[in-house]
Parts: sequence; structure tokens; C-alpha cells
Amino acid sequence: MSDVQSNLPALLAIARGERIADRVLRNGRIVNVFSGTIESEDIAIFDGRIAGIGSYKGKEEIDLKGAYVAPGLIDAHVHIESSLCIPPHFAEAVVPRGVTTVVTDPHEIANVAGIGGIRFMIEASKGLPLRVVFMAPSCVPATDMATSGAVLEADQLATLLADDSVHGLAEVMNFPGVINADAKMLAKLQAFAEHPQDGHCPGVRGNALNAYIASGIGSDHECITVEEAREKLARGLYILIREATNARNLDALLPLITEQNSRRICFCTDDRQPADLLNTGGIDHMLRRAIEFGIDPITAFRCCTLNTCEWFGLHDRGAIAPGRVADLFVFEDLRSPCASQVYISGSCYKADPGPEGPGFAIPNTLTQSCHVDLNAARFQIRAKTSRIRVIGSRENQLITDGLVHDAKILNGDAIADASRDLLKMAVIERHRGTGNIGLGFIQGIGLKRGAIAGTVAHDHHSLVVIGCDDVSMLAAARAVCDIGGGLVATSGDQILSRLPLPVAGLMSDRPIAEVRGIYDQLLAAAKELGSPLHDPFMAMSFMALEVIPSLKLTDRGLVDVERFQIVDLFV
Amino acid sequence: MSDVQSNLPALLAIARGERIADRVLRNGRIVNVFSGTIESEDIAIFDGRIAGIGSYKGKEEIDLKGAYVAPGLIDAHVHIESSLCIPPHFAEAVVPRGVTTVVTDPHEIANVAGIGGIRFMIEASKGLPLRVVFMAPSCVPATDMATSGAVLEADQLATLLADDSVHGLAEVMNFPGVINADAKMLAKLQAFAEHPQDGHCPGVRGNALNAYIASGIGSDHECITVEEAREKLARGLYILIREATNARNLDALLPLITEQNSRRICFCTDDRQPADLLNTGGIDHMLRRAIEFGIDPITAFRCCTLNTCEWFGLHDRGAIAPGRVADLFVFEDLRSPCASQVYISGSCYKADPGPEGPGFAIPNTLTQSCHVDLNAARFQIRAKTSRIRVIGSRENQLITDGLVHDAKILNGDAIADASRDLLKMAVIERHRGTGNIGLGFIQGIGLKRGAIAGTVAHDHHSLVVIGCDDVSMLAAARAVCDIGGGLVATSGDQILSRLPLPVAGLMSDRPIAEVRGIYDQLLAAAKELGSPLHDPFMAMSFMALEVIPSLKLTDRGLVDVERFQIVDLFV
Repeated sequence: MSDVQSNLPALLAIARGERIADRVLRNGRIVNVFSGTIESEDIAIFDGRIAGIGSYKGKEEIDLKGAYVAPGLIDAHVHIESSLCIPPHFAEAVVPRGVTTVVTDPHEIANVAGIGGIRFMIEASKGLPLRVVFMAPSCVPATDMATSGAVLEADQLATLLADDSVHGLAEVMNFPGVINADAKMLAKLQAFAEHPQDGHCPGVRGNALNAYIASGIGSDHECITVEEAREKLARGLYILIREATNARNLDALLPLITEQNSRRICFCTDDRQPADLLNTGGIDHMLRRAIEFGIDPITAFRCCTLNTCEWFGLHDRGAIAPGRVADLFVFEDLRSPCASQVYISGSCYKADPGPEGPGFAIPNTLTQSCHVDLNAARFQIRAKTSRIRVIGSRENQLITDGLVHDAKILNGDAIADASRDLLKMAVIERHRGTGNIGLGFIQGIGLKRGAIAGTVAHDHHSLVVIGCDDVSMLAAARAVCDIGGGLVATSGDQILSRLPLPVAGLMSDRPIAEVRGIYDQLLAAAKELGSPLHDPFMAMSFMALEVIPSLKLTDRGLVDVERFQIVDLFV
Repeated sequence: MSDVQSNLPALLAIARGERIADRVLRNGRIVNVFSGTIESEDIAIFDGRIAGIGSYKGKEEIDLKGAYVAPGLIDAHVHIESSLCIPPHFAEAVVPRGVTTVVTDPHEIANVAGIGGIRFMIEASKGLPLRVVFMAPSCVPATDMATSGAVLEADQLATLLADDSVHGLAEVMNFPGVINADAKMLAKLQAFAEHPQDGHCPGVRGNALNAYIASGIGSDHECITVEEAREKLARGLYILIREATNARNLDALLPLITEQNSRRICFCTDDRQPADLLNTGGIDHMLRRAIEFGIDPITAFRCCTLNTCEWFGLHDRGAIAPGRVADLFVFEDLRSPCASQVYISGSCYKADPGPEGPGFAIPNTLTQSCHVDLNAARFQIRAKTSRIRVIGSRENQLITDGLVHDAKILNGDAIADASRDLLKMAVIERHRGTGNIGLGFIQGIGLKRGAIAGTVAHDHHSLVVIGCDDVSMLAAARAVCDIGGGLVATSGDQILSRLPLPVAGLMSDRPIAEVRGIYDQLLAAAKELGSPLHDPFMAMSFMALEVIPSLKLTDRGLVDVERFQIVDLFV
């Protein structure tokens, strides 16, 4: 019998008013996501759950003095690893802002460390004030056009389901595989047939979209236009509107929301870096922005509470109602909700920095994740022709343009040309020591000199380097390896700044404020090197992601995502 | 691997447009319950499911000539037994009207024949054009204040879950048991903790309602006022608005529906007799009435499609979308939708009377269900005082008033007084031959002479008799037993009309049109006997239901439902 069940008689006695509640919140204005109204009632809490709404007495009674109380916010899709912090430190950033549940896809660490990496994230999320709902990474590796540290097939994912470690199947990025009925892909869908299956199908429309949805996948968070989102919603997908650090779709998609369709819309952050989380927030920021845009506040709250619970079937939360967990978001201004208090399982959350470290051991398999022999790595590109394919990076988007430009050729080599923002990019396989290195060129990063490098490179997370010259690039790559994975900026052989990410080369084990401080130095260094971008490191990290159009670079070479194949650098 | 999964590659090929669909519906106007819009697109069908919405080619192409196409309607809660017909014949009535799925609670037959009765209904529903979703009867018997033919505890119900025979727990009528944390009741809730649990809590409000909901129950279909429904909805219950033959809540509750709360509202029929089903319809009638009242048509459609699917988690239907079953409701007028065609698994439904019988054997345990020794039964009531409790029946409601009147006393016996519409009522236990007989008086049935009797008496389904004199009552009871269960009208010892219900004393094995014909004769006989009611037999059948306030009669005596105890007939 679960704790919930064994405590049920006591919960009911409190609900009936025949027993004193643990805690009663008085004089709050409840955001009722069922009725769409604001109610003035007491909230009685027992053993972490809401016992009743009405008139109650409690051992402790808290006067909310007319503040609003909403259900804790839910992030419908986030990769915690993108915060560069392990789950306890990610929680430190989002919980004080009222985010009490996140649905997470640990596919970054899974690409580095497989099932062991996923289980590390699950263990590291236990006992947190944040409820972390895990989805099983569906596409590790995302495709066979990149080398990952692990390959997860249906039978391995099923082991996560078997012991209830995961709730469903995470974003199915291999949309060509689904649409074309790839057997291994369908085997994964079948293994999760009775569970929510998140989608990822950028730009998929028409008959291809029908096929994708007919497979049983039920959501998408890759829409960038209202027209695309409207079609996907009409065909049956939940639309998870995303506002990541480098994929900002909220403003573009807010006009999608109508009273008629809003129940099918949720909010998610996908990937947000520390400074964004700490300065701007995540789901709480999206909520405020939606209300500011003119969405009815309760409709906006539903996009980060009830709707998300309905999509995922998380019926124990997402509303202030008897029997649900007492995760509450207290705020003063319905036009701009900022958390003044957050209740987790009915207790007021207080930041507790506690020990600086993670509070648990990080396995060696995670801390020793860079297997690269840089003595063998060559960044030189011999020119085959004078015309080259160039990745056209767009600010705040994951999609790129597939450009073709004249190469700058020196001594028979194609080289970077910072004057045209034509930088060299390298992706060096770091998991298996294969020596694979993919080389190409990119526009839109804007470095004028030096190089940046890192082991955060979605989704395979090999070592990615972008620079203006080979010396800076090699120095950056070497510095990343020296710190066991992380992010680095160099100018020539001088290291300007570095952020160690010892956990799988993806996450620090330091508190998020400290990580953010170092990250700010990194960003300053990149700015000093000439990049005008908000966050060139996050931009870089998506330039190796071969499932988002149009042109990307992996350790195996340039990928034409629409054609879903490796193409030559030279035209 | 299920058929669905093994056919998935073919379904996807059709969705992609690379293979010809089985059937394409052209020139339809699709009611899109996701977007809340009407779309003009082709619908491609393969192997019973929708492959895609868009432009498609089919082996067969059907021109809908601008007709509307909506998802097949869903009845959120119905007792099929109340149609007096077995499932195949019930389906004959509702499918041509566009009802393609019903969520059913077989608690009538369960009270007579236990798990065996439930399994009979499940078997009898296989292979029908109607999809029948079974819920496990939660309250057999409804209380211990009546004698039923079976007692179902949590462990027996769990056997139905174990082999996927049921989808969830049906209406939990023992609301005092839930609210007061009765151990056996909570054990049933626990057994179904991961499944939808339907509620039934007439008039429960405030803190008691909080307790009921905190238990995990998620719906209610017993609201009779907007105020009650609004409170229950705000506390988290789905509101299943009911329009039964004798419990008509639709008009009273339509003002509840707003754009803000409509997603939490579903339609159900609960109990409808054959003439109502054939003349007026069921869910289709509620849909038309809601639109006529002024509810937006797509909002009204959602109350009988998507909303119901969301409450029950039936994500394979309820919308016209890729991958969902191709159960479709085609109609011409959005202001008054009447089915012109119905598609079941993508094939146009054509009534097929087939063999007149059920097409399968009905077990003897069901056909021999009346165990009554009428020679031992006495209808005489010795007067203890001159004041008696009287059941005040209200037309078209299940609730009654608890009245107190002067008895008519003759030779020391309290007797019926038709001049004051004060009729005698008897409930004779028929399952176990206990000889139990409950006696009382009732107003509101309106017979001027004679008696009516039947083995349909919710939920225990003992033999119930209402009459103006003991001779007519005994004759009616005897006639019911002679036909192995059924409904009868008598005048003195003359049998005016009778409807045999050989299946558990609840259902005929004849086609519904034939049952309706005999039922009409019964109603004419009751009218001839003086009753002004639309359906005095259905009214009678709920006068023995001890879970709906205020005063009811079982084989154990008069039940004060608010006090939840047996009370004396005499005050």
C-alpha cells in the first residue's frame, strides 16, 4: 500500500473537517483551472496534499492576505543538462520561481553514457523539491549520421518502463524514421504504446504529418510559425510552445492561442542556460509574457498546469483540488505573476544552499567522458573546389540555412574568413576514440578572432569547435579535454575562459549561481572575440544537431537534414 | 503484436499518400474538435482507422456532397440493461443515430448475477458495431440495506482488471462509505487507483464533497442544479450531464456550460427505455438539444466526443485524426445534427436485423433468476400508528421526498388510498429466496386501480410492486414470476399486459423494436389504470434505489437515504 493510500482515511477526515489540517492557507485567491474562475477559499493541507477547499482549521494557519494561489507550474519538456547543472542545482533555479514539476528528457546524458547516464539523472532527482518526470530518450543516437556514446534500442528503453523509471517516450526526433516506418523506430513506439509519446517534427506538414501522427505520437514542440502549429494542432498534436535560450518561439506562437484551441497548448523551455534561468526564468517567464501579450491569465496558467497534466496523464497535480499534491505558486499580480511564495508538498519553499557539491557521488564513468587523441586531429581542409556548403546559423533558432559560398583558399586549403563571418567548424568524436572529425564552415556566429569549443553538442555531444584559425581551434579543443569536458574560449594558444563540466562533459557539479558566474565570463570572452550573439555557446551546441534542418555538421561530416544524408563540403 | 501495430507500416504508407486507401470520404466538412473549426478535407481510411486528412485516393471514394462529418458520439455512462435489451439489440437502437461508443456500467446484471452476469454482458458486446467500454460495478450491492444476488468486493473486481475486461471503476454510489473512509470501499478505490473512477454523489457539497473527491474519484452524473454542478466542477469532477428517461437534467444544466469550463463536461444517458431510445434518441438527442439551447455546436460535440475521451483516457477515438478509429457521424445540419450516415471502423453502417434472437446462448443462471415463494408473501400492513412515512416520487427525477401522511386504516390495516394517490409498494427479495418483503407507501405514481410490478428495481432488482389493492399486487407479482422476470400490469387478478425479461429478469432477448412494442402496451395499460406518468415502470424501478435521497423502499424496509439507515414506516 502506498503512503498516499495508507493516509487516505486521515486525509478524508481532514477534508470532512473532523480533524485539524497540518496547514491552512487563508485569504488566498485561488486560480481555479477547472472552472476558469478566481475563488476566495481556504486551502487545507495534509501530508503534502490538498485535503479540501472551503473553511478549515489548521495546526498552522497562514494568512495569504489576498495573494493569488495557482497550481505549481509545469515545464512540459526540458533537458535539464542544458542548464549545465545537475538536477539539484537546476531545481535551485526554477523552484523559487514557482516551477514545481518538469517533464524531462535526459537524452543529452544518454547520448554520452546510455542507460547509466539516465539512471544517474533519475537518482540525482530523488528527494528534490522539484518533481522530475522522466521520459525515455527515443533517439539515442538521433540518427546514424553521428557517433554517440551509446545506442539505445527498444528493449533497453523497455527496462526503464519495467521498473517505472520513466513515464513515456521522449521527443521522437527521427521523424523520417517514423514517417517511413523504420522498424527499429516503430519498435520503440510499440514498447511505449500505452504511454505518452512526445514528438519532434520541425516543418513536417501535410501527408507526412498525417503519417507521423498516425504512429501514435501526440505532441510537438518544434513549431516556429502559427500556420505550422495550427495544422499540427488540428491534426491532433498537443502543441508545446517552446521558449529556449536559443530557440525562442513564444512570441511567434502566442497568436495561435484561442479559447477554442487553448486546451491543446502547453509551455516548455527545452534548453535554457543558467543566466536565462536565473535572470529571466523559464515557464514563469512564458506565463508572464503570454498574459502581457493579451492571453487571458487563467488560459495562460492552464498552458503551464492543467493542459500539460492532461497531455501526460499527470492527474495528481496541475490544479488546486482535493487529493492533489499541494504544490502552489503564490503571487500578487494576476497581470504579471511572480512567485512571492512557493509551496512544495504543502510546505513553504526556502532556498537552502546546503553543501556546495552535489551531495552524492558522481560515477567515474561520467567524470571520464572525453576520449580524444588531439595529437592525431587535423583541422586542415584541402580545397576540392572553390564553392563550399556553409551552415547559416540564425540567431535564436535551431534551424539553419544551407548556404553555398565561395571558399577562401590559401595554399590549396579552404580556411576561415572572419571578414565574411565564414568560420571553420569541427566536430571531434569524443566517446569511443574513433578519431572521427567532421569539418565545415559556418556563418552567423560572428567571431572575429580566436575560437570557442565545448563538449555540449546536441545530441551526440562530441567535441565541437568553431574558430577563425586552426591554432585557436586546437588550443580550445585541448583545453576542453584538459578539464575533462566543458566550454572554452581561446585566442591563439591563450585560454581566455573555461567552464569545467565534469559530469559527462555536460554538467557542472557546482551550484547554478557559480556556474552562471563562470558562464558569464565565457560569454564575455566570446563577445571580446567579436561574437554579437546572446549566447554563441548554445548556438554552437545546436549546429551539430543533425535532426533539425537544414545543414548541420557531425563527426561524420556535413548533414543535409532535408535529404537526411551526409553531403560533401564542396559543391 | 496487436493488429494495429502490425498494420502500422501500411497505415503510414497510406498516410504518406504512397499507397491507395481502402476508402476516401470526399467533400465532407469535418468537425475538428481539437481546433474548434470546420475543415473541408478528404478523410482517408485504412483497416478501420483514419490514415490521413488532406488529399487522398481510395479504392472506394464516397462523395459526402458537403455533409458534415463528426467523430462518432460517445455516451459517457449508460446501463445497457435499462434499455431492457441485450447489447446487440441496444446497439441497433443507438448506432444508427451516430452513437459509436458507450461507457457502460453493468451493475444491474451484476446485482442479479455477479461476475458471471458482467462477463455475459462483455461477451454479448463483442463484435458489435458499437464499441462498449466496461466499467467495473463498484457498489454491488449499493448498500447493505438491500439484498442483492451478489456481493462484489475489491478482490473480485480486480479479476476483471487483471484480464483487461474493464477500463475503470463505475459510479461509486456509496458516497457515505467513501466520505467516511469505509475500509471495503477504499479497498475498491485502491484496486482501481490507476484507472478512471466514476462518481455518483447526489447533493454532496462542501467539505463532504472535498472528501469524496480527495479519494480519487473523478466524475459525477447526479447534478440537478447548475449551482451543484458548478461547485463539483470547480473542485475537480468531470460533470457528466445526464438525460435519462426518468432523470432529465439536461435543460437544468445546460446553463452551466461556458467556454471556460466546457472541457470538463460530458453527456450521458444513464438509463433510457426502448421507446425513448427509438423515438428521441440518446446522446444525439442531447447534442441537438444543447445546440438548440445556444451552445456552440463544436463545444456541444466535444461534450459527446473529445471531453469524454479525455476523462476516460480513450485516446484512440473521439476525434477525426490520423491513427484514430474511423467511427464517424455524418449529418447535414450543424444546427440540428441527425445522422444521415454512420461509419463504424470506416464502413458505412447498415441496419442488419439478422436473426431475431441474440445469436448466442444465454446461460441458465441468467434465465432462472426469480427465486420467490409468493405463497408465503404477505402484503398486509398492520397499523402501528395513524401517521406513515410516504415516498414522494417526483416526475422525471430519481430523488424523492420523504413525506409524512395520515394512513388510511381499515380493520386495523394500513391500506392504499388511490383517492389521495397513496399507493402501497412492496419489494420482494428474489435472488436468494429469503422471503424478505419490504412494505410501504408511495405518492406520485397515480394509479387509480390495479397494480404494476417488475423485476427491474435498481440496483438490487428484487421484485417491486406498486398497487391500489393487495389482490392486484399479488396477481402482478405472480405474473412476473410466471414469465421468469419482467414487467406486468394487472387489474384485480386480470393480467392487462406483460413484458418477459428472461435475461436476469432485466433484459429481453428480442429485438428492441419488438420490446418497445410490448412496452408501449404496458405503458398503455398503466395509463388505463390511471397513471399520468410518462413511464411509471421506470419511475417504479428507482423507488427501490436506496442511494438516492430521500426516502426509498428495499426488501429490508424503508430507507432514509440522508440518515443512511432503515426507518419505521410508522411515525
